[in-house]
Amino acid sequence: MAFEFHQKVLFKHCDPAGIVFFPRYFEIINDCVEAFFDQGLNAPFHDLHRNGAVPTVQIQTQFPAPSRHGDELVFQLEITQVGRSSADYKMTACCGDEVRLTTSATLVNVTANGRPEAWPDVIRSKLTEFKGGAT
Amino acid sequence: MAFEFHQKVLFKHCDPAGIVFFPRYFEIINDCVEAFFDQGLNAPFHDLHRNGAVPTVQIQTQFPAPSRHGDELVFQLEITQVGRSSADYKMTACCGDEVRLTTSATLVNVTANGRPEAWPDVIRSKLTEFKGGAT
Amino acid sequence: MAFEFHQKVLFKHCDPAGIVFFPRYFEIINDCVEAFFDQGLNAPFHDLHRNGAVPTVQIQTQFPAPSRHGDELVFQLEITQVGRSSADYKMTACCGDEVRLTTSATLVNVTANGRPEAWPDVIRSKLTEFKGGAT
Amino acid sequence: MAFEFHQKVLFKHCDPAGIVFFPRYFEIINDCVEAFFDQGLNAPFHDLHRNGAVPTVQIQTQFPAPSRHGDELVFQLEITQVGRSSADYKMTACCGDEVRLTTSATLVNVTANGRPEAWPDVIRSKLTEFKGGAT
Repeated sequence: MAFEFHQKVLFKHCDPAGIVFFPRYFEIINDCVEAFFDQGLNAPFHDLHRNGAVPTVQIQTQFPAPSRHGDELVFQLEITQVGRSSADYKMTACCGDEVRLTTSATLVNVTANGRPEAWPDVIRSKLTEFKGGAT
Repeated sequence: MAFEFHQKVLFKHCDPAGIVFFPRYFEIINDCVEAFFDQGLNAPFHDLHRNGAVPTVQIQTQFPAPSRHGDELVFQLEITQVGRSSADYKMTACCGDEVRLTTSATLVNVTANGRPEAWPDVIRSKLTEFKGGAT
Repeated sequence: MAFEFHQKVLFKHCDPAGIVFFPRYFEIINDCVEAFFDQGLNAPFHDLHRNGAVPTVQIQTQFPAPSRHGDELVFQLEITQVGRSSADYKMTACCGDEVRLTTSATLVNVTANGRPEAWPDVIRSKLTEFKGGAT
Repeated sequence: MAFEFHQKVLFKHCDPAGIVFFPRYFEIINDCVEAFFDQGLNAPFHDLHRNGAVPTVQIQTQFPAPSRHGDELVFQLEITQVGRSSADYKMTACCGDEVRLTTSATLVNVTANGRPEAWPDVIRSKLTEFKGGAT
């Protein structure tokens, strides 16, 4: 099961070349992950961040085609691996049939002082529901 | 020869967990690339972007340790490959001896309507000067 | 008639003090104005910006109380004056009953080379519909 | 005595119209204030924010002319009033002789839980040194 997130390309995302400035994509990727924790895992970031954090420790991203102001992007997020305190996801963003972005990344669940900590069981089992078949 | 770029971690870079919010790192990476074109290649972005652009088509980044407000980061950029219209670079950011970020990415030189175009000779030869030994 | 826009306070909006970093508010203000042109005026920014722009020439903003991660903000925008090529608006953002932001600003309709140009009639008449009573 | 801060207009600051996107100016304004506290007041933000914060409670800004990619902007900051726990400043940004931005704002010194607190004497006396003559 994939988590879906919609984002129209807004004026603020675009650069003088008229396309999405790539660092802005990483803000949208983070918004998608935040929406996934909130709506998909029922573990809103504003709760999680009271006593910890879920930093990104690595991320690999391809931009096969540019996106322009006004494009309606659909992001799909799937969990590819769940570790003791980490989770890997992959994400794609499409405009219609065209792939604009693919990314894969690793999140780690950490305590307030930054030490990795096992996912709470309720989050772990929810993460597993979003695990793709063969990845 | 590596190109060096200094960036202190500022208030605007940091998130509620008190560390650099990872999308902000990509703005700094872009600032480092912009400074490299300006000072290293003598091809300022504001000239290049009159008739074209140099979009990032893929980027892979690791964050081995978090950075905090006030940290003095030193970025080092090296070219790893120069293609007809593309260039690969790798970059590291350190605070003292500690590595905070490593990244590798591919830029493509494109025309105003987004088609790949061979690097001008003067830029190509400059890019080669920043090519690392064995990578 | 006021135009309404909803924005939850996200992780990316917040600073190390755990509250919205004030420059991020200006991105949200711009998102609200962009949504107003799109949904309220039926003049999407991505159309308008093909041949012109609507830069902000002045903006005055008060932040009577801080906003925190997870707060549900409701923005309300009203037009206060419509000039030949300019429009003034005021905007408030509330979380429940508490006012978090009030702002007033002036937009100018300009051509692609930055010269003020009269609003198209269809936009002018729509702007007037969102004009508040006594301001 | 005015505090001076230099910022070249970078790619990341500019919008599809090729000029500085106004919310980016507020990040630069904040960078200037952060540099002022660091270099002008010898009270770095990363120290101040260990036990408190200095939020902006109101800001009024004019953009008399647009700035473009590559422009070299010089910001000048002057303190206009020092209260018990607040300080007012005005700032201008020029490119050569042309004024691009004028702003005036109020900062408040607050404790970690957001309550106004008197400026430490050493900061208050430094603030006074940057107070303009007749404003």
